[in-house]
Amino acid sequence: METLDGISTGRIDRLFAGIEAFVDPAFDGWTRTVFSPSYRAERSWMTEEFILAGLEGVRVDDFGNIVGILPGRYSDAKPIVIGSHTDTVERGGRFDGIVGVLGALEVAQRIKESGSVLNRPLMVIDFFGEEANPFGLTCLGSRALAGSLTVTDLERVSPEGKRLGDAMQSFGLDPSRAVSGKHPAQGSWHAYLELHIEQSSTLDQTGCNIGVVSAIAGIKRLVGRYMGQYDHAGGARMKTRKDALLAAASSALALHEFACGSPEYAVATTTHIDSLQLAQNVVPGRSELRAELRSTDSAWFGAIEKDLALRLSMRAAEFGCELDVEWFLDNEITHTDATLQETIAAASTSLGLTWTAVPSGATHDSVHMTGIAPMGMIFIPSIDGRSHCPEEFTPKKRHTQRHCGTRKKRPSGR
Amino acid sequence: METLDGISTGRIDRLFAGIEAFVDPAFDGWTRTVFSPSYRAERSWMTEEFILAGLEGVRVDDFGNIVGILPGRYSDAKPIVIGSHTDTVERGGRFDGIVGVLGALEVAQRIKESGSVLNRPLMVIDFFGEEANPFGLTCLGSRALAGSLTVTDLERVSPEGKRLGDAMQSFGLDPSRAVSGKHPAQGSWHAYLELHIEQSSTLDQTGCNIGVVSAIAGIKRLVGRYMGQYDHAGGARMKTRKDALLAAASSALALHEFACGSPEYAVATTTHIDSLQLAQNVVPGRSELRAELRSTDSAWFGAIEKDLALRLSMRAAEFGCELDVEWFLDNEITHTDATLQETIAAASTSLGLTWTAVPSGATHDSVHMTGIAPMGMIFIPSIDGRSHCPEEFTPKKRHTQRHCGTRKKRPSGR
Repeated sequence: METLDGISTGRIDRLFAGIEAFVDPAFDGWTRTVFSPSYRAERSWMTEEFILAGLEGVRVDDFGNIVGILPGRYSDAKPIVIGSHTDTVERGGRFDGIVGVLGALEVAQRIKESGSVLNRPLMVIDFFGEEANPFGLTCLGSRALAGSLTVTDLERVSPEGKRLGDAMQSFGLDPSRAVSGKHPAQGSWHAYLELHIEQSSTLDQTGCNIGVVSAIAGIKRLVGRYMGQYDHAGGARMKTRKDALLAAASSALALHEFACGSPEYAVATTTHIDSLQLAQNVVPGRSELRAELRSTDSAWFGAIEKDLALRLSMRAAEFGCELDVEWFLDNEITHTDATLQETIAAASTSLGLTWTAVPSGATHDSVHMTGIAPMGMIFIPSIDGRSHCPEEFTPKKRHTQRHCGTRKKRPSGR
Repeated sequence: METLDGISTGRIDRLFAGIEAFVDPAFDGWTRTVFSPSYRAERSWMTEEFILAGLEGVRVDDFGNIVGILPGRYSDAKPIVIGSHTDTVERGGRFDGIVGVLGALEVAQRIKESGSVLNRPLMVIDFFGEEANPFGLTCLGSRALAGSLTVTDLERVSPEGKRLGDAMQSFGLDPSRAVSGKHPAQGSWHAYLELHIEQSSTLDQTGCNIGVVSAIAGIKRLVGRYMGQYDHAGGARMKTRKDALLAAASSALALHEFACGSPEYAVATTTHIDSLQLAQNVVPGRSELRAELRSTDSAWFGAIEKDLALRLSMRAAEFGCELDVEWFLDNEITHTDATLQETIAAASTSLGLTWTAVPSGATHDSVHMTGIAPMGMIFIPSIDGRSHCPEEFTPKKRHTQRHCGTRKKRPSGR
């Protein structure tokens, strides 16, 4: 029987094998997007697994989350809450979110088997629909649990013309309860902790076992609309054109350079460039660019709109185009709780695991939990930093330490 | 009554007003795309106008073209054929193609009114579906008339999943006759002449009245498929990415620079850049670029694939991507007949009209007529060179000559 540090991994191996059966065969990798039949089937299975793990009061809450409790000595003590999500992106992997839920079930069983009883209840949550979806709203379950899902959000429409509220209804949820259900007040939990893969390469490259998350990046999204001049692709000479597609292409490169030149952790990604036409012989007179920027650096993040305004309009002007930019704040930078950082670091050291402080470029359900409790996150390595793809991988065995030079670095308590 | 050079324009004004009633109200400008209800209605009206203009044997031929004949003295003499098309692009204008058909009707009536009889029959054609369509095949009617429409072409499928053959059938045409109908043999016409707007700015800028077309640009199209690496847009650091959308954006700029740096008339247009995904938080691992290049310079045109191979793959490599380029030859460079060039130039001079030799960047039905007869084209000015847009305009009044310095330049007879 395979073991990790002398402990059998058979139970967690069975859970991974179990969940991997619920995937959409239309995509490569392990695809289980929110509202899909494979996600629905997996949630039924997961509810059973919560019960098999010995959790009590297992149910789907008003917000679509699967919840179970390991009772503590004092039933009215504020609970410690652990969890993550089990939905994936298209062509996703087997670990993003999933390790946090399956890991939480393992934690509950280990505690129970040890014969000890926690003073506080331990609550395990599998959050509903964390990943990006066609309605443009991530973290549906954790957002709703925190009281941040609004009636207006339910009216969001997918490119296929479906309302978010209707999608929830068809999925067996009650959207009116999701926006009006009783959510836990600020301070009503003792702590929220989430185990997750890093989705970046710091741990893999340094050979550290554990990442103590210092902050979760803020995300701003933008839609750039370029206005040039439609022309005949054969007739219009190069020098007289006002090509809106070239203006957008040049802007995508400018966004890339802007993030590459930033002083701290910052990324920029253009996800879509669209000439908004079907014709193959027309100089594009209009175009649209969609991009996002992330950082844990408050000064850089706060000045993005201002710093990019001139750069992008200059790229547009270079091609004779005008530009209208619309900005959306997805989430602000979220700092983790300093005491929880210290606790995770100390626990790692006592287990002989190396650790380092890392930022999280990805957003997580944990961001929304900061409205309820002190929040901490534990990262484990992603091989080559790959994620949101079939190659996403985290080995069971701990890394051979290579050059984890910062393992004694004090985590940032900002 | 308005006159041009002392001749009433009332009849042609009525024809323009008539055809402008047949447009699709869903689009700006004057939209009458092939297979649309507005095009179908316009063709019924046009058939009546052919008869009203005194043409004989008016009919829709096997290939979808509306044809009529002004008989000559010798009915078995090879005909002179004139015409163009009346379909438009989306958000198109009122002149592209249309001046050639309405002008041909006016020519026939002027000849008849003058009391003189041509030795040869004069055939007028309104060619079926000249503009680009979702099936990716231009010049449907002239192509078929020249015997170049194939059974394989009928199997072309639009993005909406419709077969070209089925679209023709629904439009009241017989696709099997279009590919098997009797088409005129090489040399069976005396000459083919087409009047068209320039769709570029040489005539407008120089103030010349007439463009004697020297050559029609060849067109090559390419689809570039970029292969990078899908990654989490928050987790993947800028330096480790293999962003296929940036590789395509950079390639679009490279294509633009390539055409700007060419020695003669040459243009390059990227019409589409696609990240092939809906997600807003994934680094694009794949992308597609669609572009076209045109020139009348045989050396430059012939070397395009070779000259671009390294440039484009270097742009891809700069972003860690691989590139697969597929090339399509839309049409080769077509030279007009030298004798017809001389005839058009001499006629212009005798009418007191200034002229200059110009290339055609746009392709035309005339390209396909070179398989049947010597071919010539007469261009009239496009204000600001605008075309394929609502702003497309050609004034009835002749230009005030500004600096038509090349009007005595000998047309190229290559």
